[in-house]
Amino acid sequence: MTDQGQPPARRTRAPGERTRARIAGQAAKLATIEGLEGLSIGRLADAAGLPKSSVHALFGSKEQLQLATIGAARDSFITEVVAPALSAAEPGRQRLLALCEGYLSYVERRVFPGGCFFVAASAEVGAQAGRVHDEVARVQQQWRDLLAAEARAAVGKRELPDGTDADQLAFELGVILAGTDIVAVLHDDSHAISRARTAIRTRLAGQTGPGAHSLAFQPPKAGPE
Amino acid sequence: MTDQGQPPARRTRAPGERTRARIAGQAAKLATIEGLEGLSIGRLADAAGLPKSSVHALFGSKEQLQLATIGAARDSFITEVVAPALSAAEPGRQRLLALCEGYLSYVERRVFPGGCFFVAASAEVGAQAGRVHDEVARVQQQWRDLLAAEARAAVGKRELPDGTDADQLAFELGVILAGTDIVAVLHDDSHAISRARTAIRTRLAGQTGPGAHSLAFQPPKAGPE
Repeated sequence: MTDQGQPPARRTRAPGERTRARIAGQAAKLATIEGLEGLSIGRLADAAGLPKSSVHALFGSKEQLQLATIGAARDSFITEVVAPALSAAEPGRQRLLALCEGYLSYVERRVFPGGCFFVAASAEVGAQAGRVHDEVARVQQQWRDLLAAEARAAVGKRELPDGTDADQLAFELGVILAGTDIVAVLHDDSHAISRARTAIRTRLAGQTGPGAHSLAFQPPKAGPE
Repeated sequence: MTDQGQPPARRTRAPGERTRARIAGQAAKLATIEGLEGLSIGRLADAAGLPKSSVHALFGSKEQLQLATIGAARDSFITEVVAPALSAAEPGRQRLLALCEGYLSYVERRVFPGGCFFVAASAEVGAQAGRVHDEVARVQQQWRDLLAAEARAAVGKRELPDGTDADQLAFELGVILAGTDIVAVLHDDSHAISRARTAIRTRLAGQTGPGAHSLAFQPPKAGPE
């Protein structure tokens, strides 16, 4: 993410901007249950206790509301997943592990009630055309680029076995995380999170098979297994 | 899947049943673009060139239409992914590989225009309650159970390294496949399919690291890499 190291801006916001951010944040939570398509200015106005005309004035159109919702979700993702990993761990393998653990914790804690906002949004608009699709794809690409950069750092620092393909590793970590979100939410199954932690730690220990669970390092934060 | 070995029934269908199956099949394709919630009896009637009252008589309610749609998608999934793998490969590692390859091919060929029907549906209704959620979860559990059964068969036949945890392996294969579907569709990226093939073959060769690409066996069908 281009501003990946920064939590969402804490600058003073005008009242209208605060209201807009609050409504977009509510919309992001709602969208993980009912979809970006399920958002409506009328419904969000009801939830916020504001006249529909006021909410319409803040966003202008449903598409603008959807784009603002994606922006609010991105802020949450940075706050909950990216920023803690960047401050807790050095670049490379430890940071990659911290990003993956942070993601699984964010799904497990249901920061969004329907699991990862971006998995839900990707599945919803993935095959559609337009600005909403493009914005979801852009943010997801930033996430995948971040994983790839840390994987390359880990390879550069020789923290993973020689010959490790950093881009392949980053791809696998990203799809394991996204696929786990789907399973964990659909079956409301925290065991999926534990299995994903095992998969990630095995992958980042650079070994598989019978000895895979004996790792020479511990992740920065112990999972609740 | 309980009737996993059987392709969809080829029995003679009454005209109403054929029309119902045809409309449910169209609905399954549409749902991967616009969601199960986006289905409407009126819209499907337009697409089928039938009076809305006829389509309503065939399905009764939107929920019944959604459940019939899931059933049609399950039939397609069995025809496209499950049945070919069961007939092409013996139980165990080869069948597991055939199931995974078949799944990736099904995503790549866009049997459904929005990628895997069940990933899209899982993401859409995963955090909802009700019969539609439960039916999607049931079908997905059958798929995961099938992967787990074949993984256990592979372990039982000693086709994978001693100590391999079959359930962990099946979990990983399942989430890699689902996560790959999301990435491949969102970015319209066939490279994701190639990366997933590499991941699957590596996992099923029972080794990782620098030598992972030298497999001692070939999958039943070569991928278009």
